[in-house]
Amino acid sequence: MSLRIGILGATGFGGGELLRLLSMHPAAEVVSVTSRSAAGQPVGSVHPHLEKVWDVKFEETISKEVDLVFSSLPHGESGAAIESVLTATPGVSVIDLSGDLRLKDLDSHRKHYSHSPDLATLRSSAVYGLSELNGEAIKDASLVANPGCLATAMILSLLPFAGLPLRSVHIHGATGSSGSGKEPKASTHHPVRHANFLAYKVLEHQHVPEVLECLQAASVKVDDLPFVAHSLPVSRGILNTAFVELERPMVQSEVEALFAGVYQDKPFVRLKGSKPAEIENVVGSNFCDISVVAKGTQVVVHSAIDNLVKGMAGQAIQNMNLMFGLPETAGLWTGGWRPV
Amino acid sequence: MSLRIGILGATGFGGGELLRLLSMHPAAEVVSVTSRSAAGQPVGSVHPHLEKVWDVKFEETISKEVDLVFSSLPHGESGAAIESVLTATPGVSVIDLSGDLRLKDLDSHRKHYSHSPDLATLRSSAVYGLSELNGEAIKDASLVANPGCLATAMILSLLPFAGLPLRSVHIHGATGSSGSGKEPKASTHHPVRHANFLAYKVLEHQHVPEVLECLQAASVKVDDLPFVAHSLPVSRGILNTAFVELERPMVQSEVEALFAGVYQDKPFVRLKGSKPAEIENVVGSNFCDISVVAKGTQVVVHSAIDNLVKGMAGQAIQNMNLMFGLPETAGLWTGGWRPV
Amino acid sequence: MSLRIGILGATGFGGGELLRLLSMHPAAEVVSVTSRSAAGQPVGSVHPHLEKVWDVKFEETISKEVDLVFSSLPHGESGAAIESVLTATPGVSVIDLSGDLRLKDLDSHRKHYSHSPDLATLRSSAVYGLSELNGEAIKDASLVANPGCLATAMILSLLPFAGLPLRSVHIHGATGSSGSGKEPKASTHHPVRHANFLAYKVLEHQHVPEVLECLQAASVKVDDLPFVAHSLPVSRGILNTAFVELERPMVQSEVEALFAGVYQDKPFVRLKGSKPAEIENVVGSNFCDISVVAKGTQVVVHSAIDNLVKGMAGQAIQNMNLMFGLPETAGLWTGGWRPV
Amino acid sequence: MSLRIGILGATGFGGGELLRLLSMHPAAEVVSVTSRSAAGQPVGSVHPHLEKVWDVKFEETISKEVDLVFSSLPHGESGAAIESVLTATPGVSVIDLSGDLRLKDLDSHRKHYSHSPDLATLRSSAVYGLSELNGEAIKDASLVANPGCLATAMILSLLPFAGLPLRSVHIHGATGSSGSGKEPKASTHHPVRHANFLAYKVLEHQHVPEVLECLQAASVKVDDLPFVAHSLPVSRGILNTAFVELERPMVQSEVEALFAGVYQDKPFVRLKGSKPAEIENVVGSNFCDISVVAKGTQVVVHSAIDNLVKGMAGQAIQNMNLMFGLPETAGLWTGGWRPV
Repeated sequence: MSLRIGILGATGFGGGELLRLLSMHPAAEVVSVTSRSAAGQPVGSVHPHLEKVWDVKFEETISKEVDLVFSSLPHGESGAAIESVLTATPGVSVIDLSGDLRLKDLDSHRKHYSHSPDLATLRSSAVYGLSELNGEAIKDASLVANPGCLATAMILSLLPFAGLPLRSVHIHGATGSSGSGKEPKASTHHPVRHANFLAYKVLEHQHVPEVLECLQAASVKVDDLPFVAHSLPVSRGILNTAFVELERPMVQSEVEALFAGVYQDKPFVRLKGSKPAEIENVVGSNFCDISVVAKGTQVVVHSAIDNLVKGMAGQAIQNMNLMFGLPETAGLWTGGWRPV
Repeated sequence: MSLRIGILGATGFGGGELLRLLSMHPAAEVVSVTSRSAAGQPVGSVHPHLEKVWDVKFEETISKEVDLVFSSLPHGESGAAIESVLTATPGVSVIDLSGDLRLKDLDSHRKHYSHSPDLATLRSSAVYGLSELNGEAIKDASLVANPGCLATAMILSLLPFAGLPLRSVHIHGATGSSGSGKEPKASTHHPVRHANFLAYKVLEHQHVPEVLECLQAASVKVDDLPFVAHSLPVSRGILNTAFVELERPMVQSEVEALFAGVYQDKPFVRLKGSKPAEIENVVGSNFCDISVVAKGTQVVVHSAIDNLVKGMAGQAIQNMNLMFGLPETAGLWTGGWRPV
Repeated sequence: MSLRIGILGATGFGGGELLRLLSMHPAAEVVSVTSRSAAGQPVGSVHPHLEKVWDVKFEETISKEVDLVFSSLPHGESGAAIESVLTATPGVSVIDLSGDLRLKDLDSHRKHYSHSPDLATLRSSAVYGLSELNGEAIKDASLVANPGCLATAMILSLLPFAGLPLRSVHIHGATGSSGSGKEPKASTHHPVRHANFLAYKVLEHQHVPEVLECLQAASVKVDDLPFVAHSLPVSRGILNTAFVELERPMVQSEVEALFAGVYQDKPFVRLKGSKPAEIENVVGSNFCDISVVAKGTQVVVHSAIDNLVKGMAGQAIQNMNLMFGLPETAGLWTGGWRPV
Repeated sequence: MSLRIGILGATGFGGGELLRLLSMHPAAEVVSVTSRSAAGQPVGSVHPHLEKVWDVKFEETISKEVDLVFSSLPHGESGAAIESVLTATPGVSVIDLSGDLRLKDLDSHRKHYSHSPDLATLRSSAVYGLSELNGEAIKDASLVANPGCLATAMILSLLPFAGLPLRSVHIHGATGSSGSGKEPKASTHHPVRHANFLAYKVLEHQHVPEVLECLQAASVKVDDLPFVAHSLPVSRGILNTAFVELERPMVQSEVEALFAGVYQDKPFVRLKGSKPAEIENVVGSNFCDISVVAKGTQVVVHSAIDNLVKGMAGQAIQNMNLMFGLPETAGLWTGGWRPV
């Protein structure tokens, strides 16, 4: 028996990635995909890499009975669309890939998602879908707010420090161009992105508030998180570099033990010891590779994910698996794309 | 019930790709992988992208009972190793990813694989594993010589012209750096490959003879095949551009009909009409996308494959499926990696 | 004493490249650059790589006295703007980087530049600025139509065959993304260009007619030129692969001698013998590297240029040097950017 | 009158870049280049991008009279070779591009350059060639130790904080593959570098000690410098991200004023305000672009250079200009290669 899946707004990279990953899932079938612009067209005309693999057509709204809806609509549209779905189909499960339902704090939500409606009730009912942290709550949830891609990498890097006094944390994030979405724009124009590297949203990225909400709930002692995002000349992949300064020195083995304690039973986290995490090994997969180097009070944590998989569609499917009592790894148990 | 698989020489890109693809196969299990240099090490230490996905260790020789052996040993070693396996384990099925057993003509073999032994009996018993052409023979085969990557793209571009009088064929092939294997060399040194494009083996590539043998057996009327290979600044992907000059003009719809006639029932060929095939849509998948443009007597055929999948490990698994009566698409039915 | 230069439409890649190259020129000074959209802004705000190097500001029209005007306005605008300049400033020299004035044949012009006005008189007075072919005419010209980038690579590959009976010519061109200009578009969206390779304008590229006009005038015996352009995942660089089939076989040394005869005194052509030309060695420079391989009646010619330099701004400056009696290499005598 | 230049060990990327840049220099001529492996060959056979531009041949030792010697020999060989040159030719000026003569502290030297001889006298006589800081000393120097590439970016980012109390500094550096030199190695194998990003030498890079020596001499209050280097999938370019935590908050304009105070007269530093520095704008040029963002006590400084130009050969020529009383910008006054 297969789960019946609907996807709202399936023409973008997030929707395409859900479709690609679900083609390998043993217990899920995509029965409906929506798009305003592409209604009536087959999936393969918008996602030529998926031609033949899925022969469903885009439609205006979900017309079939479904067990679960993924929304990959953009911020500002997704929350309201989900509210409509829930009104029309009470009891359906929903996973939102946008940022509309992530923040619990209303002021923070209004500040960082100024184009999104408040949706106070809906937001408060959504479980933050960081699978490794909130797995138990996700199992019982019917509405999950899937984390941001950079947020996922940041949180997984810092969770093991829960409870420890920290002097400071500074984070450098670097991400591929697919994170900017499917619409061509100046920052993703190939001639000037092909061999470039630069920062954006310096000290003001919208993923920081969800990271702080999540870490503080998990007792990680950070109240300020200086974070700078950077644009890599690759399509996929995030490498997150966290400089954690401890109050008291720790040796390498202690820090490795901290991480092992938190992640040893988590299937999609691979602990690399001091061998640096590489995006090459995780791109295409749902893995998060984490490496740590400790020296006195300085600890450097690297985490690598695919922004469209563990940072988006893959983690959404991982959450789906949890919500429906499937093996957490169903349809996702494959490696990265090295060499890519 | 799962097929039990052994892989000879599994530390290279071909071996890694077999392992990656087989991790998604519903009816195959890799029970033994060999390597001289890495014996005793777990798969994840050599293929870090596959850590956790496979926990088998490399060993000197295949120590377990297996139904099928893939050899991804290099040219010059593979044929002899296969002979040993067949002597030790009569009846085991074998798929050779090297070039050692591809050519039927001994002179041609000696010229193009001068470091490989003759192995006349073994070579003559091997079925050339171009799945779309030799599917029936592969179903009955116990020994398959998997085609070269560029050869696969060339042959699939030209098969539909079988029987037609041709004035000339000229072929431009372009391939990613993973085709050069895992050992660093001058031509794959990143600083001078990153944004480069250049030819190699101009009019003397070793894949041409297997293409000619195969096409002539299939009644495609070519006796000379001027072919130039080129190095792309990507890791994966082949785009093959064939300039076919016909004796008599054909219109677009006639040429498209030729291709449809040959490929309409072949699951892994996607015919794009005149919309140019892109490597982006096939990389990571076992698909071959083919586009054609006809104008008078000139026809241009583009074919795109992933050199490590349809050009190597994927086609090998497709052949395995055929040999063992599994659905041809088992474990392979997923799309390309766009955006990659 | 310096030439005083004006540039029409200097905000694009062509204008930027003129400014970059002219910063190294010993006898030319850019005194005026125009732009409708950026009027009033300094060059560095549009071309951040040139900040400090040029401190001129964009203006609506050329306000200073100039000896030479380069037009890097788009096709369809450039010709008319040049006509206005010539009316307002009789005697000024002009080099047009657009396609508006390249074709001599009116029907061909109307077909391939349907958005450009006829400008019959102006077009007939323009010298086609392929420096190596028309150097003498350029010296006397006051109006030069600078060749297309792909056209430059094609013509330089085929000129040495002048007078020889040819059985066929087929050409594969591959070009970087900067050739598509500065405006983001779907085909230059980084996530799907970064590791892609595909054809465009198959058998219908607009550079073919100028190549045919030029080659036929130079007695190269081609009347059909099947040409396919391809998009490389690099920013700069063109590699052109010409398959030339001769009526009678020639050996390698004969073909090399043909090329040497034509190019030995041309400073910007480097003959590589059979060692394949690479874009890496010419990118950033005004060189065209050419390699040839002959085998029976088959000859393969590779030519490599930077589409923005020898294919555009560099050749324009080379022509300027010729027009004003400067050394042909002035300001251009430097190497490619290897490693790039 | 031209300076007569010799280059020791000119076959690598550093030597090639010196030759490329000097081809545009109005007052310098390379008269001798040495190489053990390539002695007797013309420059163009080793540096094909420079064919025709230089027609000098490699020789075993400098055979001509020279005014200045650049050494681009590797660490461990360069210092001793320079000692020999100085013995043989007293009075000749020397600029060392290796790390052999950079560190003043002997213990530090022995630790970080364990394969290099002590050369205590020579090292103590070398001026550290960070042009913007030590310009006056360089003018009088006859021996200059050219800074490391990452060190240059780090120092230029931190110099303006001289005298200020700092709570912490954490640095993320990212560099292109050309920094690894011309020899192919696993970390620069194209298939696994093409779309990868990862750290190396975490908290133990050999450039840190020269940065600390230099900053402490300049009164920048750092005694620990947690630094992590990262490998970018580009050939050229360094982006350095410094997280500086101040004791007391500063506003944006104050920080910008700090930087302007130090750099306003420095030709090769471009201050971008809060607009993030990009490697695209500096690659190919001798510029260092610097941007700053301040928020409370947190300041983020980005600096971008070309590792082979301002990080190596360009700064060496800038130092040559200073040593010989030439304009500091001679031969270097051109922009980056955007689009590259």
